[in-house]
Amino acid sequence: MLPKGFYCGGLHSGIAKKSGKKDLAVFYSDSPANTAGMFTFSRVKAAPVLIDIERLKKYKSFQAVVANSGCANACTGTKGKKDAESVACEAAKFLGISPEAVLVASTGVIGQFLPVEKMKKAMPELIKISKEKDEKKAVEAIMTTDTFAKFISKKIKTAKGEIAIWGCAKGAGMIHPELQGLHATMLSFILTDADIENKQLQKLLEESAKQSFNCITVDGDTSTNDTLILMANGQSQTGKLSKSDMLKFKTALDDVTLSLAKMMAKDGEGATKLVEIEVKNVKKYEDAKKIASTIATSPLVKTALFGSDANWGRILAAAGRAGVDFDQSKVDVYIGNIITAKNGMAVNFDEVKAKKILDAKECKITVDFKSGKASSKYYTCDFSYDYVKINGSYRS
Amino acid sequence: MLPKGFYCGGLHSGIAKKSGKKDLAVFYSDSPANTAGMFTFSRVKAAPVLIDIERLKKYKSFQAVVANSGCANACTGTKGKKDAESVACEAAKFLGISPEAVLVASTGVIGQFLPVEKMKKAMPELIKISKEKDEKKAVEAIMTTDTFAKFISKKIKTAKGEIAIWGCAKGAGMIHPELQGLHATMLSFILTDADIENKQLQKLLEESAKQSFNCITVDGDTSTNDTLILMANGQSQTGKLSKSDMLKFKTALDDVTLSLAKMMAKDGEGATKLVEIEVKNVKKYEDAKKIASTIATSPLVKTALFGSDANWGRILAAAGRAGVDFDQSKVDVYIGNIITAKNGMAVNFDEVKAKKILDAKECKITVDFKSGKASSKYYTCDFSYDYVKINGSYRS
Repeated sequence: MLPKGFYCGGLHSGIAKKSGKKDLAVFYSDSPANTAGMFTFSRVKAAPVLIDIERLKKYKSFQAVVANSGCANACTGTKGKKDAESVACEAAKFLGISPEAVLVASTGVIGQFLPVEKMKKAMPELIKISKEKDEKKAVEAIMTTDTFAKFISKKIKTAKGEIAIWGCAKGAGMIHPELQGLHATMLSFILTDADIENKQLQKLLEESAKQSFNCITVDGDTSTNDTLILMANGQSQTGKLSKSDMLKFKTALDDVTLSLAKMMAKDGEGATKLVEIEVKNVKKYEDAKKIASTIATSPLVKTALFGSDANWGRILAAAGRAGVDFDQSKVDVYIGNIITAKNGMAVNFDEVKAKKILDAKECKITVDFKSGKASSKYYTCDFSYDYVKINGSYRS
Repeated sequence: MLPKGFYCGGLHSGIAKKSGKKDLAVFYSDSPANTAGMFTFSRVKAAPVLIDIERLKKYKSFQAVVANSGCANACTGTKGKKDAESVACEAAKFLGISPEAVLVASTGVIGQFLPVEKMKKAMPELIKISKEKDEKKAVEAIMTTDTFAKFISKKIKTAKGEIAIWGCAKGAGMIHPELQGLHATMLSFILTDADIENKQLQKLLEESAKQSFNCITVDGDTSTNDTLILMANGQSQTGKLSKSDMLKFKTALDDVTLSLAKMMAKDGEGATKLVEIEVKNVKKYEDAKKIASTIATSPLVKTALFGSDANWGRILAAAGRAGVDFDQSKVDVYIGNIITAKNGMAVNFDEVKAKKILDAKECKITVDFKSGKASSKYYTCDFSYDYVKINGSYRS
């Protein structure tokens, strides 16, 4: 269920090659919404990302996001920007709002131009069906190699009434967030009817991304198009949030972003399982994160996970190359609740039981450095034959 | 052909599970040889690496390297070090030299102890057959997932006579060198009968590694056991090298290390092709190398290479996330001699021709930033179904 005043829809406009595959979505509010955004840190930024960054610097409130799959509109130069602006303008026309109140997002093949005419032609119908608020249709329209539509909603009870948060995301490949300030990952749109001013909204979003989108990887390949947008239109009529209600909102937002992030890792290209990597008891958080990220990205760890092989040596080897100083004779490695290495050395463990743990759809690896108090969690998936299949011929 | 005074051999001692697979090798000189070494930068160092680092700090000349496959002797604590020392000691006994004149190297599964008794039992026979100087047998004994034995030799004509260099290497997985000072990658032993003192020898080795082992990747996973040893026993009787002869020697050494490094990348686990990534015209060498390394390691680039898909967008996207500042509107991308992107944007190119270039056993990708004079080359391989197959069940 969308928060009050929000609408969304999706349809096939002809960008995607696969016949009938929905490829164009709109998310909009019938009143201006304070908006926060985070974008890819990549030096190669797609046209829609460049436009959104410019607009978010200039304006505080927006009403719509037009998003498409099938074409990333990246590496398309000045024409790419004009194309995206033209699509945004068309959406604004049918929504009866200013063109600058529209943000844009794209995902798909790099280096191709948007089929602007097809997209414009589809716009009246898109705006029309978005009145139905069929959230699944909208989310399906931004999917690429995703195998399921990722969205979630939460309700928050405040003293002055109920607030809703709704979020969606797409992303199965080119996933490795590295958020800094105005930087983020993949496509994710979060809508709420809460009343929160821009500065606070941006802060909430950045903090929330840090513990969610910031802690997942599929392939280590950060995208050119990563876009995370949070819109708050205030239509819950609950007014400015009290300190305790703000805390509730923050908790719900963190829940939404973490759930979406985990869905993305679980649906990583070719993935058969979601794996949580917890690095514990390290001196500094940054070091814990560096080690967790290195383990989560290691092809040798990820292929062993695919084979459900309790090869803890690869986990320790990946930790060793993370660029963090530590004492290898202190490190314990757990697969699920089974200890497989103690003080940096092998211990006898039940291989059958370990394999069973790794065979599950979700499993956990813990690496305990016993040298400090900082911890970090990272979510990843395994590396399968299907990953190679999907990516060996993505364009064809 | 081995340089004067050097011997080597290899046999099956019972470390490897596969029956008959050679797993134990010795390389030795019948007189003391000045020795230089480089080792893994990983924080998790195998027992043989710890022993060699200690010994190279203490002593200048060595006579033998005992190397095994099938067991990495990594994450094995104090017992692991004692085991390796004990094997070295046994080799010394049958060679009639001091135990401290022996270096050790291991590769294979992490977290298992060396079967010391089996190795000791095989030692007399190993020393005996090494008199035959059967270099292929020795190199085969250090192979793991390698599909061919990697060795090469060079002759250098100096004013005072001929010098020989011989080098071998193993490595197909856990390959991503990051050399700094006393740090290196994989197993490689280089033998020469030149007369070069230790300090110069170490300098030559480090410079040579920088342009060879330092510029290859298979999976980005730096190993716990990486060992590069260069022994010079002076038996060519050509005395101290003149400046011009030293330059000839350096050129030959660089040739040997680059050839071995390229063989390793070509024989990367599951690889079907060797790919050279050249990053050109960047401001600083370090930046060029960072970008080349990021492209060479990107799973999305490597799977596209497997599919012979001229997906230059992924190449640019990988460059974008390398952590180097650059102007995307200046970058050209070539596949072989075909330009696929100019000034950061698509150009029309012959897809069939590009596919043919990528279908070859060796191909080249060039990324030209047109913003400086620094360049860097990196060698990598593609990411195939077989990579997943080999690494999904490495231990079983």
